[in-house]
Amino acid sequence: METIDIQEVVTRDGLQIEDQFVPTEKKIDLINRLSAAGVNKIEATSFVSPKAIPNLRDAEDVMLGIDRKPGVTYTTLIPNVKGAERAAACKVDEVNLVVSASESHNRKNVRKTVEESFSGFSDIASFLTGTGISINGSLATSFGCPFEGSVSEDRILGLINKYLELGADGITLADTTGMATPKQVFELCSKVLHRWPDLPLTLHFHNTRGMGLANVIEGIRAGVTRFDASLGGLGGCPFAPGATGNICTEDLVHMLTFMDYHVRTDLDQLISTANYLETILGHEVPGQVIKAGKITDLHPM
Amino acid sequence: METIDIQEVVTRDGLQIEDQFVPTEKKIDLINRLSAAGVNKIEATSFVSPKAIPNLRDAEDVMLGIDRKPGVTYTTLIPNVKGAERAAACKVDEVNLVVSASESHNRKNVRKTVEESFSGFSDIASFLTGTGISINGSLATSFGCPFEGSVSEDRILGLINKYLELGADGITLADTTGMATPKQVFELCSKVLHRWPDLPLTLHFHNTRGMGLANVIEGIRAGVTRFDASLGGLGGCPFAPGATGNICTEDLVHMLTFMDYHVRTDLDQLISTANYLETILGHEVPGQVIKAGKITDLHPM
Repeated sequence: METIDIQEVVTRDGLQIEDQFVPTEKKIDLINRLSAAGVNKIEATSFVSPKAIPNLRDAEDVMLGIDRKPGVTYTTLIPNVKGAERAAACKVDEVNLVVSASESHNRKNVRKTVEESFSGFSDIASFLTGTGISINGSLATSFGCPFEGSVSEDRILGLINKYLELGADGITLADTTGMATPKQVFELCSKVLHRWPDLPLTLHFHNTRGMGLANVIEGIRAGVTRFDASLGGLGGCPFAPGATGNICTEDLVHMLTFMDYHVRTDLDQLISTANYLETILGHEVPGQVIKAGKITDLHPM
Repeated sequence: METIDIQEVVTRDGLQIEDQFVPTEKKIDLINRLSAAGVNKIEATSFVSPKAIPNLRDAEDVMLGIDRKPGVTYTTLIPNVKGAERAAACKVDEVNLVVSASESHNRKNVRKTVEESFSGFSDIASFLTGTGISINGSLATSFGCPFEGSVSEDRILGLINKYLELGADGITLADTTGMATPKQVFELCSKVLHRWPDLPLTLHFHNTRGMGLANVIEGIRAGVTRFDASLGGLGGCPFAPGATGNICTEDLVHMLTFMDYHVRTDLDQLISTANYLETILGHEVPGQVIKAGKITDLHPM
């Protein structure tokens, strides 16, 4: 029975684009519930400028306020050495670096060339040496760029190599705006894992065009065992108003559980936490299983 | 390049549960646009009692009012010999019979045992002999019943056999309430096509729990090349208020087109027809691609 790791991003990728600031104690509560549900990793927050992302201005309070459950990896997104210092002060287990695979998206997102981003990552890696904090390298727009279109597999392989050269412990290929097709996922991941068979490789999918869980299936078939997902399917894409966001954690865990994969995360606890998320936000979330119930929830005639 | 057939069910499975009666001329217009877009088959309407499904009370007017495009199969659901007579009078290409694989769902749906349903189908088959009208046999709840839970593969194989014995030309396995998992789809369809390698087998999925397109991927991997889908993802499940309905035709065609399958249906025409559907209904439909655009629709920086 193959084991699949569930990596939760709702309090970072989900909450950062909400219209409202979710109070710190609610964020802490959410993360604690997700830890209790048994997710493998939680991207708790982002140590970016509070001006850039006001919704995550409470990053320190969140990281220091949560219960750190043994066996769960607590990671945070960081953009620079300043972020690394803040993350280290909070004793995160891992930092997550992000650069876009496409130049235009990186320029739009962080106003840097890809080369400039990697130069900054070198400084971060130097700063973190000896701290025991792991580094995960994320490649946004790995499956396509909303400005440039397709991104070549060779470019992705080259950028993974750059991350590994500066000491990254794991890599995430992110489908930032939901452009990946199942065929592309299988082909790219097969090549990556052929070249680096032991690489801790995560896939980060958005369900923007409905292909999210299909992409997971083909990622698993290529050998990937780690997936990012967002509780309730929260998240989204600025280019696709009304479209769904990140793939939904409870929908993902529901599918994998009933496909007999070993998933450490408890589905019922996830579903109740997704319901709690709706009460926090005051609006519906895109997840399907919290509306439809599990396939084992039978109905009276 | 493998060819996948797209079989549209929106004017039957989608419109039958809408809160409103869609005017006959709009239904005709929708079907004509779908024919023009190049779908392979259209389940245009249902020759059932107008009391049972008032939204489809104009079945004759629809079937006789549409333009019949050569190369498109026009099919209608029929419940009994009376329905077969009405369908034959309209010169349909095919009739679609439906029985549930689970006794309780069949009783709930048509107030008959499965045996009684098949007995009625024999009468229909006799009536249709020599008319040139094909028979498709659908098995609802093939991947699980909302009342009973799982349905055994042996039972499905047995029921397919019963359909073939009475002369069915094709079989549809329907996941009526969205309970199928990708693993289950691969396993069941592999067994069916192993036993009947040349069987025209259709899969009819609902996206109730988000697994719809993932199920298509595994159906194709098992050798299935025909899929039902509903424009805009219209349809639904009475047990899952708020959940999405049938898998969405334009999302399906979008995925398959960009996976390099040969799909005769034109994606752009489908998308514009889905937008037209929203104007007819006066509400949003669950489809993602009409919100997000195609993956090739690039954005200015």
